Amino acid sequence: MNFKVIEWKNGKVKLLDQTRLPQEIVYLELDDYKSMATAIQEMRIRGAPALGLAAAYGMALGAQESNTQTKEEFLRHLQVVAQALIATRPTAVNLPWAIERMERVAASAGNVPQIKAALIAEARRLEAETEASDRRLGQWGAELIPDVATVLTHCNAGTLATGGYGTALGVIRAAAEQGKRIRVFADETRPLLQGARLTAWELVQYKIPVTLITDNMAGHFLSRGEIQCVIVGADRIAANGDVANKIGTYPLAVVATENGVPFYVAAPTSTIDLSLASGKEIPIEERASEEVTHFRGVATAPEGVEVANPAFDVTPHQYISAIITEEGIVREPYGDRLKKLMFFAQGREAND
Amino acid sequence: MNFKVIEWKNGKVKLLDQTRLPQEIVYLELDDYKSMATAIQEMRIRGAPALGLAAAYGMALGAQESNTQTKEEFLRHLQVVAQALIATRPTAVNLPWAIERMERVAASAGNVPQIKAALIAEARRLEAETEASDRRLGQWGAELIPDVATVLTHCNAGTLATGGYGTALGVIRAAAEQGKRIRVFADETRPLLQGARLTAWELVQYKIPVTLITDNMAGHFLSRGEIQCVIVGADRIAANGDVANKIGTYPLAVVATENGVPFYVAAPTSTIDLSLASGKEIPIEERASEEVTHFRGVATAPEGVEVANPAFDVTPHQYISAIITEEGIVREPYGDRLKKLMFFAQGREAND
Repeated sequence: MNFKVIEWKNGKVKLLDQTRLPQEIVYLELDDYKSMATAIQEMRIRGAPALGLAAAYGMALGAQESNTQTKEEFLRHLQVVAQALIATRPTAVNLPWAIERMERVAASAGNVPQIKAALIAEARRLEAETEASDRRLGQWGAELIPDVATVLTHCNAGTLATGGYGTALGVIRAAAEQGKRIRVFADETRPLLQGARLTAWELVQYKIPVTLITDNMAGHFLSRGEIQCVIVGADRIAANGDVANKIGTYPLAVVATENGVPFYVAAPTSTIDLSLASGKEIPIEERASEEVTHFRGVATAPEGVEVANPAFDVTPHQYISAIITEEGIVREPYGDRLKKLMFFAQGREAND
Repeated sequence: MNFKVIEWKNGKVKLLDQTRLPQEIVYLELDDYKSMATAIQEMRIRGAPALGLAAAYGMALGAQESNTQTKEEFLRHLQVVAQALIATRPTAVNLPWAIERMERVAASAGNVPQIKAALIAEARRLEAETEASDRRLGQWGAELIPDVATVLTHCNAGTLATGGYGTALGVIRAAAEQGKRIRVFADETRPLLQGARLTAWELVQYKIPVTLITDNMAGHFLSRGEIQCVIVGADRIAANGDVANKIGTYPLAVVATENGVPFYVAAPTSTIDLSLASGKEIPIEERASEEVTHFRGVATAPEGVEVANPAFDVTPHQYISAIITEEGIVREPYGDRLKKLMFFAQGREAND
């Protein structure tokens, strides 16, 4: 099956509604930035790199909505668009990262019609870059995967999460394409079941054998030596190597470490935020309690019960065996090495 | 609200259907042992100590079903009943433990009508003992709970799990009744949501503040110092102190230990199985894949995906700060101390 996470088509954004998967393949057509902001909040598109794409296309949509011919007024409008998109979800840094990139393009282009065209082109360029970057990341990461391995992953860090080849799933796909015999254990990932609904579905498409488990089963299989490595994506990586990722990542890293199983994070350099010294500074999104208490409108808990619903947790760098990026693999000490990597990555961007 | 987990009434067993909670309070009336076996398999009653009660009442039901007056023939029939009940669920040792106790009573009673009456009396005695034992356990355990504490628990080890005052929840209730300011974090406990459906519901009845979280959120709160201790029940405890309990207990113990948070197991001595040297020998029940892939008949995963569904995991004794029983609190080295405790518990039983 072929599917496209997001694309620009006839002046609109066509977006695969991930809340309907795996039962239904439904595409949304968005023609204004507010619909994009809503789609992001409702997690119709999710995953840090894909949120970068969604934000970029959201900026392109917002630009089309303005009728002004004054550049100044137009850029003020774009700022409103940018703020609305940034406000949707706080944790993934790829979202503000992509918007800043779009703002730079807008500032350097000529008149309003030229900016409008440049923003569409830039969003498309970002989409193409994501695919290429994911594939480089996959090649780096595949080196770390044994020839015969059961790999455990959490949430979804595949094509659906990036719009490209995938990060954690990109590594798994690359290893499988190299002829390695890979089997995947997919955590279902409560409360929104991205593992059950999205990762299991993607792996079925790729014909990579997958076993679905509930999140609380991962420890059992790690302790029994049935998992050779764990690999997950990331929503934001701080300067010291601490990683914010989908809730449940941290206990997985602790239990993997306790059992001597390597724990890898796969993420593009756009996920690295050197402005934050440690993971403690990463904002953690708190989502609605209904995600925990209800399943498709059916209550699973007594009425009125209090709920906590942090969407992410922070894994301290000491539990992370390596961070795999499109520019290469980084290990401890993360502080120095992430800085060098980012210097290299920015050099590449400047030369592109 | 008042509720009764299981009771003998007019020659039948009245049983609260825990699969319907918290939405509906439905009682089943069982009048044959096969219905009891089915109810156990379908988890209409669950929790290790409550399974002991269910098995005991199942034996009493099975006894009533026999029309023979020959004691020999009757005891052969009882063996068939016992085997059917033991075969329902393999992990909780309370089930065979209660059945052995019923068999001893049957063997020592006089004629068939006397045995039938003795089995009903013995099941009722076990029910009363459970309540008393839970309360003693609660008093011991409450000593370990700080005066102001947020306590995390997994699955359900309350009245619904024992038919008495509860084990892990019994400790929490006792602490709260002593005036300690207790708040509970309840893991929802996938796949069957005993935490969301049963523990949260019980705590609402007891007016103890409860916050519901998904299983994969526990690590986040443990790492942030928001939890003062973890307390869970047990399905079987091996001679070396290894504990089998609901899937997800083991990673909780590892992450609690990593964060210096005490991890307690609360279980009656009937859960201790000195015949098994370590947790590796405890049989782990594998349940149907639909529990993971479906929610009330609605699929949450792509069709045909492979699933693993172990219902329990084993927590090695080194992660357990203390085991709380009705006879007192046991700490490392568990090997010697559990043996002494059981010697004492059996002495008490013989004197009763």
